[in-house]
Amino acid sequence: MTHKKTLLRVIPLGGLDEIGKNMTVLEYGNDMVVIDAGIMFPDEDHPGVDLILPDFSYVIRRKDKLRGILITHGHEDHTGALPYLLKELGPGVPILGTKLTLGMISVKLEEHRLKKPKLREIHPGGHVNLGPFGFDFIPVNHSIPDGVALFIRTPVGNILHTGDFKFDQTPVDGRLTDYSAIAAAGKKGVLLLMSDSTNAESPGITMSEATVGVALREIFALAEHRIIVASFSSHIHRLQQVCDAAVESGRKVVVTGRSMINNTRIARQLGYLDVAEEDLLDAYEMGDIPPERIVVLSTGSQGEPLSALARMANGDHKTVEIQESDTVVISATPIPGNEKAVSRVINRLAKAGADVRHKGSDAVHVSGHAAAEELKLMLNMVKPRYFVPIHGETRHLRAHANIARMTGIAPDNIFMLDNGDCLEITESSARVSGRVDSGVVYVDGLSVGDIGQVVLRDRQLLAHDGIVTVVIAVDLQTGQPMGEPELVTRGIVLGTDDDSLAEDAVARVSKTLAKTAREGATDHAVIKNAVRESLSQFLWERTHSRPMIIPIVMEV
Amino acid sequence: MTHKKTLLRVIPLGGLDEIGKNMTVLEYGNDMVVIDAGIMFPDEDHPGVDLILPDFSYVIRRKDKLRGILITHGHEDHTGALPYLLKELGPGVPILGTKLTLGMISVKLEEHRLKKPKLREIHPGGHVNLGPFGFDFIPVNHSIPDGVALFIRTPVGNILHTGDFKFDQTPVDGRLTDYSAIAAAGKKGVLLLMSDSTNAESPGITMSEATVGVALREIFALAEHRIIVASFSSHIHRLQQVCDAAVESGRKVVVTGRSMINNTRIARQLGYLDVAEEDLLDAYEMGDIPPERIVVLSTGSQGEPLSALARMANGDHKTVEIQESDTVVISATPIPGNEKAVSRVINRLAKAGADVRHKGSDAVHVSGHAAAEELKLMLNMVKPRYFVPIHGETRHLRAHANIARMTGIAPDNIFMLDNGDCLEITESSARVSGRVDSGVVYVDGLSVGDIGQVVLRDRQLLAHDGIVTVVIAVDLQTGQPMGEPELVTRGIVLGTDDDSLAEDAVARVSKTLAKTAREGATDHAVIKNAVRESLSQFLWERTHSRPMIIPIVMEV
Repeated sequence: MTHKKTLLRVIPLGGLDEIGKNMTVLEYGNDMVVIDAGIMFPDEDHPGVDLILPDFSYVIRRKDKLRGILITHGHEDHTGALPYLLKELGPGVPILGTKLTLGMISVKLEEHRLKKPKLREIHPGGHVNLGPFGFDFIPVNHSIPDGVALFIRTPVGNILHTGDFKFDQTPVDGRLTDYSAIAAAGKKGVLLLMSDSTNAESPGITMSEATVGVALREIFALAEHRIIVASFSSHIHRLQQVCDAAVESGRKVVVTGRSMINNTRIARQLGYLDVAEEDLLDAYEMGDIPPERIVVLSTGSQGEPLSALARMANGDHKTVEIQESDTVVISATPIPGNEKAVSRVINRLAKAGADVRHKGSDAVHVSGHAAAEELKLMLNMVKPRYFVPIHGETRHLRAHANIARMTGIAPDNIFMLDNGDCLEITESSARVSGRVDSGVVYVDGLSVGDIGQVVLRDRQLLAHDGIVTVVIAVDLQTGQPMGEPELVTRGIVLGTDDDSLAEDAVARVSKTLAKTAREGATDHAVIKNAVRESLSQFLWERTHSRPMIIPIVMEV
Repeated sequence: MTHKKTLLRVIPLGGLDEIGKNMTVLEYGNDMVVIDAGIMFPDEDHPGVDLILPDFSYVIRRKDKLRGILITHGHEDHTGALPYLLKELGPGVPILGTKLTLGMISVKLEEHRLKKPKLREIHPGGHVNLGPFGFDFIPVNHSIPDGVALFIRTPVGNILHTGDFKFDQTPVDGRLTDYSAIAAAGKKGVLLLMSDSTNAESPGITMSEATVGVALREIFALAEHRIIVASFSSHIHRLQQVCDAAVESGRKVVVTGRSMINNTRIARQLGYLDVAEEDLLDAYEMGDIPPERIVVLSTGSQGEPLSALARMANGDHKTVEIQESDTVVISATPIPGNEKAVSRVINRLAKAGADVRHKGSDAVHVSGHAAAEELKLMLNMVKPRYFVPIHGETRHLRAHANIARMTGIAPDNIFMLDNGDCLEITESSARVSGRVDSGVVYVDGLSVGDIGQVVLRDRQLLAHDGIVTVVIAVDLQTGQPMGEPELVTRGIVLGTDDDSLAEDAVARVSKTLAKTAREGATDHAVIKNAVRESLSQFLWERTHSRPMIIPIVMEV
């Protein structure tokens, strides 16, 4: 045979060495599909940034080849980049997901005023062909209903992409991860397994979501006053358990917070959340009901400053004022980086008189991701030839790779990829070959992609030591400095106890200007540099601080 | 009796509604003592701040009454303010602490070049009188050796101040918390208990420090390459267990990181750390020994960017380069706010090839503070009339108050104090009466106390949205604007895709200046305000960002 076989290319554009912005490209000849298109939320390293997108320019440049985008579940780290992606792709590309996943996506697309997206509902257990790819959808448990893993038939062999998953033996909705489908995939033969690494460092198994229901019912049974529960608004099973515990203990449920109101509405409409109309109460009707008959279901489990729970904690929520003996349950875990914000909200709630129950004090949260023993089970059922750990920082991918080795995958067949790496696969081989553009795109206000590392570094410097602006007037004709330089500071003190500091700083700049004048310097860059250096040295000597110094030369 | 009885005043100056800067004043007539003088470490709300001190001006103003400063243990949140306090008090005031506590304090005082402090060693089980106060020192377990609780005889009755403590039934050094002394105090009668609230939200008991030794020995037994352990350098028991596990597994110990080197030296000198000279290795000798025979004991368990472990993770440590198959153990828990930094270091270590074990994956850390059931035991042994929960945020103090109620303390006898509150106690009563100056003093570089909330808020604004400086030249004679305004930005982009933005901004400012000129405005404040408002509105419309805007008016 002289016919050169076409390669399958597997290209993760996001989700490797990071938690978030999950996105993977599969490419075979003239056909391409994308699995997930998520965002990442910025942390304190990205002051002022609203969202972080994957760099999906590779997909945009090949949009004619794109047969569809498959979404494994409705979390924003798997769906949030869709509005930005669709703005560049146009509305024609099909988006495939389960009913609830598409329901949540359509709300987001409407918010971005994206008209008539081509949403195609898939059914767990169903099958779809996109070009040379055939997709089977395997139900998996996760912290949002309706999640699927993807069993993908390709011309070179089969791939299993787990999405985010765990094995919950007693799921709240009775929908088990489909063990027989996974085992059948293993039986058919899986060339490549791509599996969720988020909890690979956690030993043992992740507890069942049902255990949270037990803890909630215990707390509800003993609470003598109002109960407020904060959770992720997309965690419909959690919301179901809160509603069930509320009804059991003779309480009505009040929903507050924009995303909580949206998601409970969609989930009820689509049949994922079962709570009777009569058990729901409008926030404005709360006054008519004694507090011991109320459960408030709220956003804000991450300590977000503008969320409903933070507003309650600060005493500026429209309808809920924290009262002595209220019980607040934070039924979530802080995403890394949010610990301090959550802790601050807990403390403010305590100050307002609430008893706050959280993961540290009660069993009110479990993870949605498989821990080490479950990852072993997945590997042992699938028995893949090649393995790529996905969805996690390097620490998690590495732990998952160790787990894969323990289950007998040959070390050479385990690929620790970076975003942008191209894994080329044939029927009998796999190797990393080249890289495509990947990385981050910052969304800041209305600006997508303008903010870069320099701007972020400037912001961090500004935050750390403040800024000193020095305005220097120079004669338009002679180029010589005129009059006294003017200093304006923000985020730094040149004064108070040591009033001479500001005067001395001006004197130092004047001296520097006199020196540059003597040397005949008229080039603004030279003058600016001299001023910056002398003032920086002066401030370090006198205050041990290193503010950003911005000399401005005005010709007058 | 017409003689008016003198009141005892108990005044916490720090440690309430916060973790850190613990400090309490006891005052009776013309005599005063201070218990602990700690610092707090700044978080992301205090960009650029180095340290946070309690406001101890109350003590300074009454320094003639001060009979001594008692330090319960050697942690910086109990000792770190001493150098700053002594600079104002002078070296004459006695500082009382146990041997190790004083050893650690004297290193700090030397660093601050404070000469000849009056350090007085106390002995657990011993007794000291200071004015009308009698102190007994009760050994307690904590995450540093040589901690004590204080049993304090005062003219109005007895006080028990627990310091930081836990009940460890199998302490590493065999030194149990002295149950009989605590029970004897309860028998004598305790008017007021002040007790550590740090872990009041944690149910059950805190595990014994000895359990960490078991986990370390398991890891050491299986590690096939070099081992690096990061921990708190003051946690001598932890260091002892690391050394023991190293020697047991045939490894030498290399100590790295300034505070780790200092503290192991002091602890060995004073007899608190038992490791043979032959089992210690200088970092520069490491090359001569195979990696599987080495344990590196390192600072950096909090992800501090300049620490030894962070340098290893970044590949710029002088003597330790992370190699494939190294095992790194982070034997500590991140202090709230440090989670992200620790996570980043773990990830970088994983990238460099290390297997990282931490609290989330292995039982390599336990807390040094008593959990709920231990707090109940303390309350039940002491049976105080009055109770003040100390050392914790409001959430922890409140949880501790709930625990106290459960053990039968009358709610009216539990005082939730704020820093600065004066609790006035007689033989038969206790009430909060008035407040003294309290609060925070920021140390930033060489400046103590200059930085205030305005500066910190400015820094946060700068970090979030950057800064735009607008320089406007006005005619010295007419007060009218001249030429074009100049815009300089940092931490914000006015350009790239949308080059017209910067030009449009200048045009908007020019228009505003033309308007103020038409209206005859020459007052700089009026011109600045008009420019700030119009530019702010413009930038919000065009970019949805709100940078700090600093108009500077130059008369030329």
